[in-house]
Amino acid sequence: MGNMSIIMASPANILVINPNSNELVTAGLDAALESHRFAGGPTIRCATLSGTPYGIESQKDIEATVMPLLRIVTSDTSADAFVIACYSDPGLHVCREATRRPVFGIAECAVLTALARGERFGVISISADSARRHHRYLRQMGLLSRFAGERPLEMSVAETASGENTLARMIEIGGDLTMKDGADVLIMGCAGMARHRRALEEALSTPVIDPTQAAVTMAIGAVRASGI
Amino acid sequence: MGNMSIIMASPANILVINPNSNELVTAGLDAALESHRFAGGPTIRCATLSGTPYGIESQKDIEATVMPLLRIVTSDTSADAFVIACYSDPGLHVCREATRRPVFGIAECAVLTALARGERFGVISISADSARRHHRYLRQMGLLSRFAGERPLEMSVAETASGENTLARMIEIGGDLTMKDGADVLIMGCAGMARHRRALEEALSTPVIDPTQAAVTMAIGAVRASGI
Amino acid sequence: MGNMSIIMASPANILVINPNSNELVTAGLDAALESHRFAGGPTIRCATLSGTPYGIESQKDIEATVMPLLRIVTSDTSADAFVIACYSDPGLHVCREATRRPVFGIAECAVLTALARGERFGVISISADSARRHHRYLRQMGLLSRFAGERPLEMSVAETASGENTLARMIEIGGDLTMKDGADVLIMGCAGMARHRRALEEALSTPVIDPTQAAVTMAIGAVRASGI
Amino acid sequence: MGNMSIIMASPANILVINPNSNELVTAGLDAALESHRFAGGPTIRCATLSGTPYGIESQKDIEATVMPLLRIVTSDTSADAFVIACYSDPGLHVCREATRRPVFGIAECAVLTALARGERFGVISISADSARRHHRYLRQMGLLSRFAGERPLEMSVAETASGENTLARMIEIGGDLTMKDGADVLIMGCAGMARHRRALEEALSTPVIDPTQAAVTMAIGAVRASGI
Amino acid sequence: MGNMSIIMASPANILVINPNSNELVTAGLDAALESHRFAGGPTIRCATLSGTPYGIESQKDIEATVMPLLRIVTSDTSADAFVIACYSDPGLHVCREATRRPVFGIAECAVLTALARGERFGVISISADSARRHHRYLRQMGLLSRFAGERPLEMSVAETASGENTLARMIEIGGDLTMKDGADVLIMGCAGMARHRRALEEALSTPVIDPTQAAVTMAIGAVRASGI
Amino acid sequence: MGNMSIIMASPANILVINPNSNELVTAGLDAALESHRFAGGPTIRCATLSGTPYGIESQKDIEATVMPLLRIVTSDTSADAFVIACYSDPGLHVCREATRRPVFGIAECAVLTALARGERFGVISISADSARRHHRYLRQMGLLSRFAGERPLEMSVAETASGENTLARMIEIGGDLTMKDGADVLIMGCAGMARHRRALEEALSTPVIDPTQAAVTMAIGAVRASGI
Repeated sequence: MGNMSIIMASPANILVINPNSNELVTAGLDAALESHRFAGGPTIRCATLSGTPYGIESQKDIEATVMPLLRIVTSDTSADAFVIACYSDPGLHVCREATRRPVFGIAECAVLTALARGERFGVISISADSARRHHRYLRQMGLLSRFAGERPLEMSVAETASGENTLARMIEIGGDLTMKDGADVLIMGCAGMARHRRALEEALSTPVIDPTQAAVTMAIGAVRASGI
Repeated sequence: MGNMSIIMASPANILVINPNSNELVTAGLDAALESHRFAGGPTIRCATLSGTPYGIESQKDIEATVMPLLRIVTSDTSADAFVIACYSDPGLHVCREATRRPVFGIAECAVLTALARGERFGVISISADSARRHHRYLRQMGLLSRFAGERPLEMSVAETASGENTLARMIEIGGDLTMKDGADVLIMGCAGMARHRRALEEALSTPVIDPTQAAVTMAIGAVRASGI
Repeated sequence: MGNMSIIMASPANILVINPNSNELVTAGLDAALESHRFAGGPTIRCATLSGTPYGIESQKDIEATVMPLLRIVTSDTSADAFVIACYSDPGLHVCREATRRPVFGIAECAVLTALARGERFGVISISADSARRHHRYLRQMGLLSRFAGERPLEMSVAETASGENTLARMIEIGGDLTMKDGADVLIMGCAGMARHRRALEEALSTPVIDPTQAAVTMAIGAVRASGI
Repeated sequence: MGNMSIIMASPANILVINPNSNELVTAGLDAALESHRFAGGPTIRCATLSGTPYGIESQKDIEATVMPLLRIVTSDTSADAFVIACYSDPGLHVCREATRRPVFGIAECAVLTALARGERFGVISISADSARRHHRYLRQMGLLSRFAGERPLEMSVAETASGENTLARMIEIGGDLTMKDGADVLIMGCAGMARHRRALEEALSTPVIDPTQAAVTMAIGAVRASGI
Repeated sequence: MGNMSIIMASPANILVINPNSNELVTAGLDAALESHRFAGGPTIRCATLSGTPYGIESQKDIEATVMPLLRIVTSDTSADAFVIACYSDPGLHVCREATRRPVFGIAECAVLTALARGERFGVISISADSARRHHRYLRQMGLLSRFAGERPLEMSVAETASGENTLARMIEIGGDLTMKDGADVLIMGCAGMARHRRALEEALSTPVIDPTQAAVTMAIGAVRASGI
Repeated sequence: MGNMSIIMASPANILVINPNSNELVTAGLDAALESHRFAGGPTIRCATLSGTPYGIESQKDIEATVMPLLRIVTSDTSADAFVIACYSDPGLHVCREATRRPVFGIAECAVLTALARGERFGVISISADSARRHHRYLRQMGLLSRFAGERPLEMSVAETASGENTLARMIEIGGDLTMKDGADVLIMGCAGMARHRRALEEALSTPVIDPTQAAVTMAIGAVRASGI
């Protein structure tokens, strides 16, 4: 490791891509990742796709982001690892096929990280519409035996905007997931819930995983293991 | 985050515990984790248990480390997270029950990290004796559908000491795991193989996971998410 | 069913979409489906996508067909059911979300049809590259316990063109799948192998499923059940 | 296919066997299959076993039909494919061992067909008594991960006779299966519910599978693929 | 337990039924169960079905024994528990539905008993023909994750008659199951292999389960727990 | 079996070890096993560990018994088989590695025995705290597909002492497990519930398994099969 100083001068570079075109969401991600930036650690950049849906709410929205994601992953030469920051992990496998640099999906990383904190995980989702998709994805991961349940916030955008009500609702749902469904670790099933993580964890005395932090953590580990 | 400067002044503290009593192994772990230390990042300390077996090769050796591990986890008040650095994850669940601070096992973290890099993982183990134990553990994790196979080095201690032969043997075994068993990501099934990770990954063009790095990465993520 | 004559005058309409842009493949599909056309049965049309890859050999090729497929499914108002005729089932779920008319994928239908003919199925694929994708897809379907194995033809395009060698190679591979892997029903893992189905079935005394026929059969059943 | 005209003159022949001895049930099956008969398509005959129970309500009733079913399958030389039309699939495997002609069970085909229409299926059964048997059968098929639940009608014969109440009860149960259990495709778990299929599907906006139609569809596909 | 003396005077009664009509097989069972008879323990009787096949080698043979088995179970009033002594467990569920007295199948009991002795079991079967049936049965039990493999003797009747060759062949096959397939406990997949159990166990240093002994053991436990 | 008289003179010896240090519990075990002692059968001794917790209520309590258990198993030369009589099966695998004599855990044996009596088992546990541990253990056994549910008594020690209330509560819970969760066989998830077995079984018309009896039964079978 004699060339450590050179590495420090040009630290590893992690690119977090928000697949929707809402820059406010990207700004939220950027803030939530402040905790994962270190003086000597990898640079963590957050980018917003353009031309994609303003929010990702359907399989069609998901598919609309795949080719734009692929274009970034194949054209960006500065990133040492990529994080796709949407809880549906759009384009994950096509991006992996396109580069030897590691690509992480925040849903996959959230679930895997949760399994190191509890026996069975519960998911707080935005709406009931995603339940089918998420169940299919868990089957694909082969992890159904560790799944306790998923419960949706089912709040309007207006309601979600008011932070306090959102947290109260998350605590209520999280309580159902732990008390009724048997979860002992919770996942926030959306990249935009990050700011409530600590309060929720404290209120429920149960580990709570923020998916973007989980994926960026794995990205940091991957680039550091490669000595970048 | 107004108290960020205070946090930086007293960074988070991760305690990596080598359950066997061989200090050379601990020194190896310490070196392998150098890549995961940052100027502003968590302190990563490595400790050796005393009074435990010199190597962990049987279920009896595993059990002999459980109570000593528990004593460290309950008596140490400085660590913000613990890593148990033996590929059998001794005492993992009893330590988790004893503290609300996160406790990571390197086998569990290695498998979970591998699942973010490939479809099916293969394990390079030290000896065939651990196959039954590992299979039982994978069933316990509920992850058998992602398991491609495990193949042992079956080298004597003397042979292992000579680094080049060890690497050659790992490349041979890793090739069997990928070509014959269908693995597309490999796990080094021992805390002591870390120094061969990059060379093996390069030789096989396949991601290779070092279990201790995988667990320390998750520990870093956990303490940072908690703002420590 | 007093209006049966009206229905006969305007029979149900099944649209089989070849996602690649190779019209020769479409012509082959069309010929293979001749057996599934009846005087009083549904009309079976075959269409070729334009602007998509000439062959579907990678995840990128797959993704490139998704939006074009979605456009056809949402714009075509004459079809009563759709069949996506590529053994990777591109765009299956997004097309299903976009219409209440049934949409079938030939890989999914082939596997499901095989399970009504034997205990464990084997797949004859074009190349080893698809093994990871197919394994992931079988996990997603939750059907891994019925999977005996997949073996690739690994023939060049030139070799495949010569029918006799292709059949001989399929018989060899099919024999391995049944004798070594324990399959008792075989799936031809490509829309373009249809013409060898009967000869292969006869040579191996084992049921052989053509995926396009399997999907069109299910489409016929769905439109007839709805009385169209 | 030069001998197509000969084939048309003597079309394929599918024999649907009602294992109970109630000819009214057979007549109902026959009517429900009218939609699957085409001018140029296979002949679909329905036969009633004699000497078997009047209704199949227990494992003993099931076993009592096995040898009579086997006798038909081995003695009938005119059928090109067989369908066993009882939702317990009696004698399925012994009949398959006795002939190289395809034999389909309506429960198996219903489940497999449902998996091409939704993520997780729910079953509307006649009575709670069959739940244990059906659960065992789903485990045998290896399909438990796609099973949302089963709910019984629990109506008396008199109540079932009145069509309107039966449909209302099916809609209620189907609603529970979709809203409470997470099913997105439903199976009518009895050969005698066929006439309510379309109304149920319309009322719940969810695909509904009639098991006999599902099996006959697969039989049509099998005989046509064989060019019969 | 004041009436214990009365119970002792008329001890519990276990009826072991050989479903084939070969009385030599029954005599062999009877001898193999001598070890499970105690002065104060349950009476263990062995009976032979009449009118059933001389050997059970196909699904048809299996089905031919079901109704005769059911007749014994419903007509015999002296037995406190039944054991069906054929490794295909014919009629197990119909017999269970017909009586509240416990009914055991030797295949099921062998597998369950093996799971208390090792991580993964291997099966020594008579012929390869049963592999499909056994695989289906293991799926039905939900126990596939503990199955290491099945290997057939494939010996002629004449060869089997000569004890020494049979044992040598069993040792060879058992060695393959443990060394190649990963089994650490073996099941003799036929009621007639009992006399080789101890020699096989000793030769391979691996627990070997005789299925009839396993089932009779469970029957003893059941009747004693009920204080009969 | 000419040496039968010698065997009778020195019968097989089964050692049942109560891992907690409460001798009253051991006395209860001893009484519950009276039914499994025969004139000519194995001697069944019950021993109490000393220096271990008075009750086993946490993972820490479990771990505290492992080394003491191992010491007994390795030092006792008179026993032909061992039973570890705590529903958490502490030290099961380490004891198995330490001796070639069979070692049984009562939880494992209870579950395996239940699977020979019904399709899906329910567990009556002492407190909700064990649910996570038990779920993890069932995953390890690979038996989750047969698990209907677990419900805790949640009674104080004082309440449990009064037998009648305990039985009433067990009947209530057992009814929920069978009626709501779909269990058709029940396991008493504690070595100390034995005296209620028959009354519970009668009240619910459902087989009820006492775990210690289940394990001792398997131990009897194992020693008798070995002709001891």
